[in-house]
Amino acid sequence: MISKNMKELVKNNSVIREMFEEGKKLVKQYGKDNVYDFSLGDPSIEPPSNVDEAIIESLNNKKSHAYMSNSGYEDVRTIIANSLNRRFETNFDMKNIIMSVGAAGGLNVVLKSIIDPDDEVIVLIPYFMEYRNYIKNYNGKIIEVKCDENFEPDMIDFENKITNKTKAIIINNPNNPSGIVYSKNTINKIADILTKKESEYNKSIYLISDEPYREIVYDGIEVPYITKYYNNTIVVYSYSKSLSIPGERIGYIVVPTEADDFEDLIEAVSISTRILGFVNAPALLQRVVAKCVDLTSDISEYKRNRDVLYNGLISCGYECKKPQGAFYLFMKSPIKDEKEFCKIAKKYNILMVPGSSFACPGYVRLAYCTDLKIIENSIPKFKELIEEIKKYEK
Amino acid sequence: MISKNMKELVKNNSVIREMFEEGKKLVKQYGKDNVYDFSLGDPSIEPPSNVDEAIIESLNNKKSHAYMSNSGYEDVRTIIANSLNRRFETNFDMKNIIMSVGAAGGLNVVLKSIIDPDDEVIVLIPYFMEYRNYIKNYNGKIIEVKCDENFEPDMIDFENKITNKTKAIIINNPNNPSGIVYSKNTINKIADILTKKESEYNKSIYLISDEPYREIVYDGIEVPYITKYYNNTIVVYSYSKSLSIPGERIGYIVVPTEADDFEDLIEAVSISTRILGFVNAPALLQRVVAKCVDLTSDISEYKRNRDVLYNGLISCGYECKKPQGAFYLFMKSPIKDEKEFCKIAKKYNILMVPGSSFACPGYVRLAYCTDLKIIENSIPKFKELIEEIKKYEK
Repeated sequence: MISKNMKELVKNNSVIREMFEEGKKLVKQYGKDNVYDFSLGDPSIEPPSNVDEAIIESLNNKKSHAYMSNSGYEDVRTIIANSLNRRFETNFDMKNIIMSVGAAGGLNVVLKSIIDPDDEVIVLIPYFMEYRNYIKNYNGKIIEVKCDENFEPDMIDFENKITNKTKAIIINNPNNPSGIVYSKNTINKIADILTKKESEYNKSIYLISDEPYREIVYDGIEVPYITKYYNNTIVVYSYSKSLSIPGERIGYIVVPTEADDFEDLIEAVSISTRILGFVNAPALLQRVVAKCVDLTSDISEYKRNRDVLYNGLISCGYECKKPQGAFYLFMKSPIKDEKEFCKIAKKYNILMVPGSSFACPGYVRLAYCTDLKIIENSIPKFKELIEEIKKYEK
Repeated sequence: MISKNMKELVKNNSVIREMFEEGKKLVKQYGKDNVYDFSLGDPSIEPPSNVDEAIIESLNNKKSHAYMSNSGYEDVRTIIANSLNRRFETNFDMKNIIMSVGAAGGLNVVLKSIIDPDDEVIVLIPYFMEYRNYIKNYNGKIIEVKCDENFEPDMIDFENKITNKTKAIIINNPNNPSGIVYSKNTINKIADILTKKESEYNKSIYLISDEPYREIVYDGIEVPYITKYYNNTIVVYSYSKSLSIPGERIGYIVVPTEADDFEDLIEAVSISTRILGFVNAPALLQRVVAKCVDLTSDISEYKRNRDVLYNGLISCGYECKKPQGAFYLFMKSPIKDEKEFCKIAKKYNILMVPGSSFACPGYVRLAYCTDLKIIENSIPKFKELIEEIKKYEK
């Protein structure tokens, strides 16, 4: 009855659902504060109060719930372009911005616009697994690039994986699940390799940067604005994390004027928005993000969470790299089979996602967008957990 | 650079954009009240004031902008199920309802869930042309069924067009562009043919009913609730027209428990919602439609518009069927080439959409969701137009 491709997805989904149900069961049995659920990337910080104020203000607009152009309100797009220009010394205007139904919607719109069947799309390990589904939606082929022990892309592998079928590369900066931020140096290397290969194969290769965590960075680290490093770039952004409004599905796509065939590309993105059934990003929320364009939730809570979790885990004897951004910590599993590690951890009411779910076995992802109290209470449990593992290894 | 399929769409789109730009130019030149723009199906009636009240009330919910299940809030889905049960004597509960990003989003989600490449999907002429794009998104094949002079489906053609590759049929009730409502009798005939063919080919064939105009009907006519007539039915609904909030992208999908492989189907719909990048229907608006579940805008304005337009056109000597629902009138072109007719009409500042855009040449669509004054002022122009046509024919 359902499509063949969907049958496979339904099968896999039941595994995820089982995990989720098990988590709910644990909470019921032990109480919310005694289950250390690090599995979900759901913002724990409240939106700034400006969001609800902006919603009420936006109701004063005439025809505030009516259709607009598929690309979104022109005044909203201008405000966003100006904000980017102020913050990143770019040179965008309204025509470079297309409002989207979050970053997930934005990525689908972009991939629909550019992918022909069997085109290759490169992703960098570790990566958000949903990219696989997005690429497959348009019959693209997923090509994975290895990373080093710091989760930086292996540039030799990257260069080798580019073929005359490569249509795009998707990067996620800051990265889910690793928490690293690709530096100017890394971006420059990626751009140089792409420029060389574009000339070698005489074709355009898009660098798509998925940036829902752009504002969630620590210790003054800078996330390079990618359009300044390479021309054939598309940025996909979401307000889900910066304003803690993931349920509202609002974001935007940036296509710089310097991209090859800019006019066709921007029109394709607008048409894809329509024919994939998004039609336009939610009207009211477009006005809201324009009114909150330079605001974020109080990110300092995530920094505090990161510090408590990272220091706690290190003190227990776990190995991990200190996250530079996003709200994930990617920890080395103390045993080779990280799925087995997650299973043992569950006995201590600790829930984590195996690295295999990000094409990176041997690691586990901890989402620390949760209550500080839960993080604090989890540390003694992590200690007990690693001690059991050590015994088990002897 | 952009995909091959997209190149074709960009080319076609420039024709539509040209028409739209031309309309804007006319308004600039002659003033809004002197351009008779019947081209856009954009609700002219204000939303009921309850919508904005419900938005403000919904802000009181805890975590009102957070993620929820891909299928939507459980309490909202229960409220919608109960409303349908009250109104249509159905027997739904929460599990039968999946919230969607409007009807366009809902249709894409449904088609993604069921279509394998080269599956055939039947549409009934005249039909909303966007169905073509939606079906093609999932590599389905579009099969058109002819209609009679009342825009009722030709049942013999319908039966003949069903093959062992038929996966679904999409109907739109009330119909855009014809304004007709398929009666119980018509629905029963469709259901009988589908049941016979399901048994002949030993497979399930879905009847997908796209119902954004369900509440916009006149003269007490009834729109049959399709799940009561056939088991393998999926209803796609949007609040865009009933509450005049098309920019907000909110609707739902109904899958009755009686559908074959119900559990798999409902899970496929939920997964498609996620992987197509909708993730979930906008959070705030879910709460809003639950609070407005049995309300509509003041539909009586559309009825008044319909009557003035229909009576005016008949008095001028045009041929058309009185619309029973939606806000479209599908008029016979007084000359064979309806595109030529639209071109001549433009000299009188009258803008209409050629029937070819709905696979039904020889007719033109007039959207009467516009100011009454514009409709009234247009009638003398329509008179002049038909007189020029008559001269031209002599």
